[in-house]
Amino acid sequence: MKANHTYSEDDIGFNVPALPGMRADDIQTPCLIIDLDQFEFNLQKMVKELKSYNVTLRPHAKMHKSVDVALKQLALEGTKGICCQKVSEAEVFSRAGISDILITNQVCDELKISRLSGIAASGCRVTVCIDNLSNISALAEGASKKNTQIHCLVELDCGAGRCGVAGPEELLELAKAIDATDSLIFDGLQAYQGGIQHEKSYEQRDEVMQGVIEQVKACLVSLETAGISCRVVSGGGTGTFLIEAASGVYTELQCGSYAFMDADYGRVKNKVGQRLDRAEWKNALFLLTSIMSTARDGRAVCDAGLKVQSVDSGLPIIFGYDDVTYINCSDEHGVIQDLKNKLEINEKLRLIPGHCDPTCNLHDWYVCVRGGKVEHIWPVSARGKAW
Amino acid sequence: MKANHTYSEDDIGFNVPALPGMRADDIQTPCLIIDLDQFEFNLQKMVKELKSYNVTLRPHAKMHKSVDVALKQLALEGTKGICCQKVSEAEVFSRAGISDILITNQVCDELKISRLSGIAASGCRVTVCIDNLSNISALAEGASKKNTQIHCLVELDCGAGRCGVAGPEELLELAKAIDATDSLIFDGLQAYQGGIQHEKSYEQRDEVMQGVIEQVKACLVSLETAGISCRVVSGGGTGTFLIEAASGVYTELQCGSYAFMDADYGRVKNKVGQRLDRAEWKNALFLLTSIMSTARDGRAVCDAGLKVQSVDSGLPIIFGYDDVTYINCSDEHGVIQDLKNKLEINEKLRLIPGHCDPTCNLHDWYVCVRGGKVEHIWPVSARGKAW
Repeated sequence: MKANHTYSEDDIGFNVPALPGMRADDIQTPCLIIDLDQFEFNLQKMVKELKSYNVTLRPHAKMHKSVDVALKQLALEGTKGICCQKVSEAEVFSRAGISDILITNQVCDELKISRLSGIAASGCRVTVCIDNLSNISALAEGASKKNTQIHCLVELDCGAGRCGVAGPEELLELAKAIDATDSLIFDGLQAYQGGIQHEKSYEQRDEVMQGVIEQVKACLVSLETAGISCRVVSGGGTGTFLIEAASGVYTELQCGSYAFMDADYGRVKNKVGQRLDRAEWKNALFLLTSIMSTARDGRAVCDAGLKVQSVDSGLPIIFGYDDVTYINCSDEHGVIQDLKNKLEINEKLRLIPGHCDPTCNLHDWYVCVRGGKVEHIWPVSARGKAW
Repeated sequence: MKANHTYSEDDIGFNVPALPGMRADDIQTPCLIIDLDQFEFNLQKMVKELKSYNVTLRPHAKMHKSVDVALKQLALEGTKGICCQKVSEAEVFSRAGISDILITNQVCDELKISRLSGIAASGCRVTVCIDNLSNISALAEGASKKNTQIHCLVELDCGAGRCGVAGPEELLELAKAIDATDSLIFDGLQAYQGGIQHEKSYEQRDEVMQGVIEQVKACLVSLETAGISCRVVSGGGTGTFLIEAASGVYTELQCGSYAFMDADYGRVKNKVGQRLDRAEWKNALFLLTSIMSTARDGRAVCDAGLKVQSVDSGLPIIFGYDDVTYINCSDEHGVIQDLKNKLEINEKLRLIPGHCDPTCNLHDWYVCVRGGKVEHIWPVSARGKAW
């Protein structure tokens, strides 16, 4: 049993798995760690990739829910504003001084609208998505009461089968209704194809996105014909962003996962059939876990179960090993197949989470490591902000 | 669009989905609600069920992670102490004054052992599970350094295939090693069959548990033969607890889910083939959600996705409806099949979560309702306490 801590237990608070300056070996598990070198590589790579296209990057903060991560993203060229998914999430980021937020979602409840208007009234540029006529009057009234204006994108259902209008006819109706209010400003379209981001084959993603781009073009023509100006077409994710960037119609991209990567994106292939998380991006986010039982032959049990990761997109991958496999996840435990019985009690492993967004939302802290040391502890600032 | 709030947005804080005294209709979604009448029914029923057996109830707090819920459970006769799964969780409950805690898990890391010993040194009776010889010296040293004692159960792997020793031989070795220390006290066995709790058929659960009971009896004989006293056999869950209670060998039960129920337990049948959540228990926990888009014919989209529920055990069930079905869950949305297009924007639905434990761990608050009013707001005190 390895145990050679360089601190006393009083150093690590009740609520914190590590402290800056600590050795990475001493981090309390289970917790999320960010490998800062890999994270910075991903951030830099994205803005380099987008440099030759006429699009801005508006990273999606629903993925990381961290003010610190958002500020690192916003510091890079070509990046303007962030995306959020919920009003309470947007409140966290606007209170931290971020002054341009797109809610990539519908906000319908009266109190939520009032709070959203409050963010706009505080000086933050707020944009929200709309797919329902009755929502327009509610939003207009809310903004008007706070003496402010809210920017609006009409959401287009481009095949994800969730929210959004079907096509130009409904789009025009909503755009006109938005333009007819004093407190709402029609900016354009949201056309995000969420369902296709994790499609493994590049050809399949490209084919679907070409259809979406045609759908967007038809919308732009119908808006132009009606004399309605469309300044924004927003969408795109880590799986498809270069297709949107090259389309000539998208003006901003909402990528999120590129900053961290996850096991599911590791199964997605690039144009030449290579894994996105090796050939294009780096795994920057890990769930650090410790072995806590080796009682059974050929098996080890670790301390990372369902309460520290979401398995909706599959089980985690153990980073850096090819002979041990995470095979079963229960509330508090992970069972690892370890046929050579090589894993020892208290040994630490880095897991690549199956799906980064809902996994990050389970944690209070990112422990940021570089060169075997803890460099920062970043709060998951908007964790649990679901309403 | 229904909207007739009885409060201003200033009443509901940035962090709270509701306030005591509010109408249940005005609760901000998505959030967890506890139906207090149903919750109290479940708590009362459990102690009534156990009255005729010679067992105590030690409810598992890993399910609800709430000091308020634990105190309600401990106030009832036949209940003694609680179970926790992690040291940080136990710290929350011991700081709240709960003075008898069993960690139903291995604690191996040096710092975790030191903190565990700290809880014991503060006057709380602490018990922990052991399945590894090297862990005994580490625990003994930790307790000794804090000048305290820790009670120990040897964990038996009774088929769940996770932690635990295989049988009497290893058990005896560990029991003797525990007894040989000054700071550890061998109390007995943990024999929890987690894998069988959600088996749908009562006969199948009974058959497996009879095998486990035989396994426990063999362990008790071998301890007795060796002259080692075994005061505790701990185990049992909501799916099997009456079998353990009637066994004559279990002394305490670790049930958790009975207090809240979930959709997965709704698929588990009692002795006469009835659903556990209707014939035996009541659904007391709900994920309250609002409809936020009805743009597609035959579909509605609600605001409860993967970030407010765990779908590891299946999708949630919509309570009180038989003609609308939750059919798809993404990060922030749920897609509901609504062939009659009956659901309206802002309409609220109660979802029965697929799996209560990891769902509760996603939330900061329980909004407790009775008679259409919010009666309490209980913090999910140990949410995120995973280390």
